[in-house]
Amino acid sequence: MIDFPYMKYLCRPTPSKIIMLVVDGLGGLPDPETGKSELESAALPNLDRLARQSACGLTEPVAPGITPGSGPGHMALFGYDPMKYVPGRGVLEGLGIGVPLRDSDVAARGNLCTVNEVGLLTDRRARRMSSEESTPLVRMLNEITVPSVDLSVHLVRDYRFVLVLRGNGLSDKVSETDPQAVGAAPLEAFALSKDAVETASAANAFVAAAREVLKNRRNANMVLLRGFSQRPNIPDMGETYRLKPAAIAAYPMYRGLAELVGMNVIPTGLAFDDELTTLEDSFDDFDFFFLHHKPADVAGEHGDFETKVASLEELDSRIPRILDLGADTLVVAGDHSTPAIMGSHSWHPVPLLVNSRLTKGDGAPEFSERAVATGSIGRVPATSVMMITLAHAGKLLKFGA
Amino acid sequence: MIDFPYMKYLCRPTPSKIIMLVVDGLGGLPDPETGKSELESAALPNLDRLARQSACGLTEPVAPGITPGSGPGHMALFGYDPMKYVPGRGVLEGLGIGVPLRDSDVAARGNLCTVNEVGLLTDRRARRMSSEESTPLVRMLNEITVPSVDLSVHLVRDYRFVLVLRGNGLSDKVSETDPQAVGAAPLEAFALSKDAVETASAANAFVAAAREVLKNRRNANMVLLRGFSQRPNIPDMGETYRLKPAAIAAYPMYRGLAELVGMNVIPTGLAFDDELTTLEDSFDDFDFFFLHHKPADVAGEHGDFETKVASLEELDSRIPRILDLGADTLVVAGDHSTPAIMGSHSWHPVPLLVNSRLTKGDGAPEFSERAVATGSIGRVPATSVMMITLAHAGKLLKFGA
Repeated sequence: MIDFPYMKYLCRPTPSKIIMLVVDGLGGLPDPETGKSELESAALPNLDRLARQSACGLTEPVAPGITPGSGPGHMALFGYDPMKYVPGRGVLEGLGIGVPLRDSDVAARGNLCTVNEVGLLTDRRARRMSSEESTPLVRMLNEITVPSVDLSVHLVRDYRFVLVLRGNGLSDKVSETDPQAVGAAPLEAFALSKDAVETASAANAFVAAAREVLKNRRNANMVLLRGFSQRPNIPDMGETYRLKPAAIAAYPMYRGLAELVGMNVIPTGLAFDDELTTLEDSFDDFDFFFLHHKPADVAGEHGDFETKVASLEELDSRIPRILDLGADTLVVAGDHSTPAIMGSHSWHPVPLLVNSRLTKGDGAPEFSERAVATGSIGRVPATSVMMITLAHAGKLLKFGA
Repeated sequence: MIDFPYMKYLCRPTPSKIIMLVVDGLGGLPDPETGKSELESAALPNLDRLARQSACGLTEPVAPGITPGSGPGHMALFGYDPMKYVPGRGVLEGLGIGVPLRDSDVAARGNLCTVNEVGLLTDRRARRMSSEESTPLVRMLNEITVPSVDLSVHLVRDYRFVLVLRGNGLSDKVSETDPQAVGAAPLEAFALSKDAVETASAANAFVAAAREVLKNRRNANMVLLRGFSQRPNIPDMGETYRLKPAAIAAYPMYRGLAELVGMNVIPTGLAFDDELTTLEDSFDDFDFFFLHHKPADVAGEHGDFETKVASLEELDSRIPRILDLGADTLVVAGDHSTPAIMGSHSWHPVPLLVNSRLTKGDGAPEFSERAVATGSIGRVPATSVMMITLAHAGKLLKFGA
């Protein structure tokens, strides 16, 4: 809880090192046939052994019944109240690909998409075209100008881009143009507050120009915009916790989140092994490492139980590499559950383990939703994880006389 | 949590149907001789089987140690912070019997009672006289007039009635006249704030006139008033959750609660079987059903362990009838515990089960206080039950990017 009232008196810098491994979409639900969840189905010798030597529990990402997006899920793990600090998608993606956003800029997440001859969406993601195909298109979009607002368009990856609007008096209170369904026409952007009229006009002018630029194409002949957002005012994680925090995350959105809370975002490769190499290379330079693991969430979102199990097993095989670094505190957490049987994020609480010299295990025989439920940490709001972690690392002073 | 800040963006209407069975006074405590609670003593083959296929947990109705009345207990289950939304007894009973209350009306719950020759209470409930006997008396009370305030008196049932005061500038900050003990004299109503002086005077004038009207009777020769209240300003449940909610409850107070939160209160008979017939008949017309079961609480209040066990067993035998409807999500919850060994409501957490296509059981072998304690829902504030329920029914969108 970064808003804990006495935080600045409690945190103290120490040489101890923390690794927080966030396994995206970590939690799951039982396969109806076997009665076992993804974690229970996977062979996880290293994580299970770790659980038997750790303090275990479950985290509630936002509130019971609330399914978090990755933004709130991570913000909570970093100790930020996810209902108070709500960064938008445009800002996250923009920061994630290294666009230097000013506080007054408005960023939107964009998709190249495909419409038919009467303008109805046939594919919201333009056949998930590759970055090779989309790069020249994004370059063309970046040439578009509109009156009195500076535009820039930045490729994220494949069919996805970020539109940044820069100017005076812009507002992010603009509705999205993505109708979220094929067969529908892209929507106009509407100003959701009076001071957003100019921003909405600029967005609509950009979309009209983009349609013109792309009109002779069959695929990727239109764009969709959503997640209009501005950089929120947010406490700096390093300053507040008196840490030197680093983020090692391949995916842009998580890099964006980390940048937003003030972490040092270290360049890394796309694979988890690349991330581990980055972790090893930078281990001397920081005292807190947010290490992001994506594959389990992707498999869960695809409803692919087997692949989620396999991705967890692959992660497990890398645990010794992490342990070899000898961090004083290792946390394994998830930003939310992504049960493969649902094929989506869910509201279910997420397994947590915290390992330090003070933990000798508390009865959880393995690392799974059910096994950690009776662990010593209990069921805690995800915003508590940072405090527990700092405590284990000896970085929190006593509160009160 | 009806006050969850982003609720209006999260709720979406779907065809899925929810039944929330509220077993009044559900939770209990072990009989000292057997060491088993009412739920543990009862043979509940259907509820036990359901628990084995559900997500289970315990609800905290208001806060640890706080014993809720039925009002707060139900408000919390519907997602309303019971410390913020506190409807008074008069309003609840009035709405429950269908009195159309205006926001400015003040309603009080009344008892016919009996006093001796020197005016001391000998029976606070006038020998629990029947509605047949009380109907002509209530008709006489309804003839009473006082200056500048319109009065109306409505029979609830037996010795109980509702007094409605209608006029300009009335206030419900009026103390009750029931001393809550035999041997004492009925109290004067006092204004608890300056703007309640006129209301207190009108109430006292009504009581004086009632004493006059009833003075020649030996039983039911006086009245007691309590629960002075006005309709609170409360968010509409259907609008907020984007549901079409219906209430099926025989007892007036629960009908009043349901009306207050904006449910469609369906006429029904007195017995639980009547309620089930109403549920079956109206199942196509709504997507959320609050189904109220009263007998276990009555037995608990009477300190009658055996009868509470029997009423739970009878309820259990009706579970298949509820399951036959095929609701997408079935919740079995309680508004509070009523342990028979206490003979009253209590503060203890209350068993909860949520059954949907996503639940395969989480280890609770039966439906009892102890068995559900380690379920996957854990111990949650009762205000979370609606969110968890909406989530299971697919009626909540993801929060945040």
